[in-house]
Amino acid sequence: MAITKQDIQESHKRIKPFIHRTPVLESHSINEMCGCSVFFKCENFQKIGAFKIRGGMNASLQLPSSKLAKGLATHSSGNHAQAIALAAKLLNTRAYIVMPNNSPAVKVNAVKGYGAEITFCEPTLQAREDTMEAVISKTGAEFIHPFNDEKIIAGQATATKELLEEVEEIEAIFAPVGGGGLLSGTSLSAKFYGSNINVYAGEPEGAADAVLSFQTGKIETAPYIKTIADGLLTTLGEITIEIIRENVSDIFTVSEKEIINSMRLIYERMKIVVEPSSAVPLAALIKNAEHFRNKRVGIIISGGNVDLSNFKEWF
Amino acid sequence: MAITKQDIQESHKRIKPFIHRTPVLESHSINEMCGCSVFFKCENFQKIGAFKIRGGMNASLQLPSSKLAKGLATHSSGNHAQAIALAAKLLNTRAYIVMPNNSPAVKVNAVKGYGAEITFCEPTLQAREDTMEAVISKTGAEFIHPFNDEKIIAGQATATKELLEEVEEIEAIFAPVGGGGLLSGTSLSAKFYGSNINVYAGEPEGAADAVLSFQTGKIETAPYIKTIADGLLTTLGEITIEIIRENVSDIFTVSEKEIINSMRLIYERMKIVVEPSSAVPLAALIKNAEHFRNKRVGIIISGGNVDLSNFKEWF
Repeated sequence: MAITKQDIQESHKRIKPFIHRTPVLESHSINEMCGCSVFFKCENFQKIGAFKIRGGMNASLQLPSSKLAKGLATHSSGNHAQAIALAAKLLNTRAYIVMPNNSPAVKVNAVKGYGAEITFCEPTLQAREDTMEAVISKTGAEFIHPFNDEKIIAGQATATKELLEEVEEIEAIFAPVGGGGLLSGTSLSAKFYGSNINVYAGEPEGAADAVLSFQTGKIETAPYIKTIADGLLTTLGEITIEIIRENVSDIFTVSEKEIINSMRLIYERMKIVVEPSSAVPLAALIKNAEHFRNKRVGIIISGGNVDLSNFKEWF
Repeated sequence: MAITKQDIQESHKRIKPFIHRTPVLESHSINEMCGCSVFFKCENFQKIGAFKIRGGMNASLQLPSSKLAKGLATHSSGNHAQAIALAAKLLNTRAYIVMPNNSPAVKVNAVKGYGAEITFCEPTLQAREDTMEAVISKTGAEFIHPFNDEKIIAGQATATKELLEEVEEIEAIFAPVGGGGLLSGTSLSAKFYGSNINVYAGEPEGAADAVLSFQTGKIETAPYIKTIADGLLTTLGEITIEIIRENVSDIFTVSEKEIINSMRLIYERMKIVVEPSSAVPLAALIKNAEHFRNKRVGIIISGGNVDLSNFKEWF
């Protein structure tokens, strides 16, 4: 069942009371450096510090009250866990979050801060899924997938809808790609609310699975995993790969150095705090700047949840 | 000659075409932590990354064209240097900046980036003043003081004027204090544009001269100098001490640890990049929170020009 313009429209209306309308920022010096006009949709200023609350609220709000009453469940060490925890809090139900036992304390505390119940597991996908299943069979809570879910995708699409409501004549949009929920939503909103917008993704060389999947049409794993962009480690899902292959123009990979340089630019020139994943699209734009000369380019800044103790490794 | 409401009004009109109207941000979690409503006027998003462009433009725009043609001059290793450099660029004249030869490369490059001519000197006040005099006698450029100047103060006052235009019923405002230009302007705008607003300053314990001067009425030096808030090292001037003693309610000192904790809060909760000096007022508010329970408090975030390589020492 394809996601329609009406789905995104209704999702936006549904979640609006629960989310921030985040600002679109520009930087004169980044524009000069890129040779184009860049409009940053700043989801680092979103509730929970990342776009994930859009999809999380959208999925949760569509549950029948009998299901909602049993609680929400997910496995995630990142922003989706916080999104589900906050969604549960806002909707007066419980959140059951499975997190790997090596999750950074700062993330565990953020999830706890929203009142979620955390179950720790070994840091493997198998252990995550097994533990999740056990939690669900015990509680009856509703599992909410971080990206491979049309309601999640329609929710994430609302960031680009807002960007296009605010900035005219955007010709290209860059988003990061992990599991592909944000990228899928971005590409759908670009199609429905823009005219001839090309959508591109940035992906770390050290988690380059989506660029392969984009080429082969199958869900591929990355040749190697080594990146500071910890939000982008996931592979695509059956739903996102299809939407992305149909609606995204290209996926550009960038090195760790290019990610750090891009992050440095954002901190120094824009004076905003972003997580490494959010610096990947700008890195991709800078690397391919000659193709975007004098164009109007949107960039989705996905989030700002960063452990400050990592700064010493980056800057 | 006292600064009047009309002076600030006219200053604002004069500089508006050259400055950004910066946003006022709030943070739910900082409000909860402080037990009051805090409104941050974010001059880290201002041109040159700090409020100093307001005063710098205001003074420069009032020079007769014959004087302006000979150029602008100042000695500073900080944001005032960038302000004068940008003012000169915008007004098509030269800027002559005297900087201590131990200035960080990032600040030297920023000033150079605006096309200013830099003369280096030994890092002492005497050397700065001697070198400045030599540069001025050679060039005939107009010296623009960083804070002890009514036009500068009236320019800095416009930040609080904007804050009060945007947020109603503010009852207290916190600003940092170095030379006292921003604090003086803040207190004047609070008087002219607010009703019964108390203005407070935050000052580092390791540069605690203003708190002494505030008590004795004479320009005092700090008992010891050791602070990461490098924008707040200066002593007050003859003009600023008088305005501050008349219009400021109190000056609170804070430790280095309190500054870093406050800065960490701003980075983590607000997702914005600020320089250490900008974290001093929030540190002062947190330390004295019981006096501001349930009040509406403004904080001037003075700037965001920070050398990212310092992060490793702070976080």
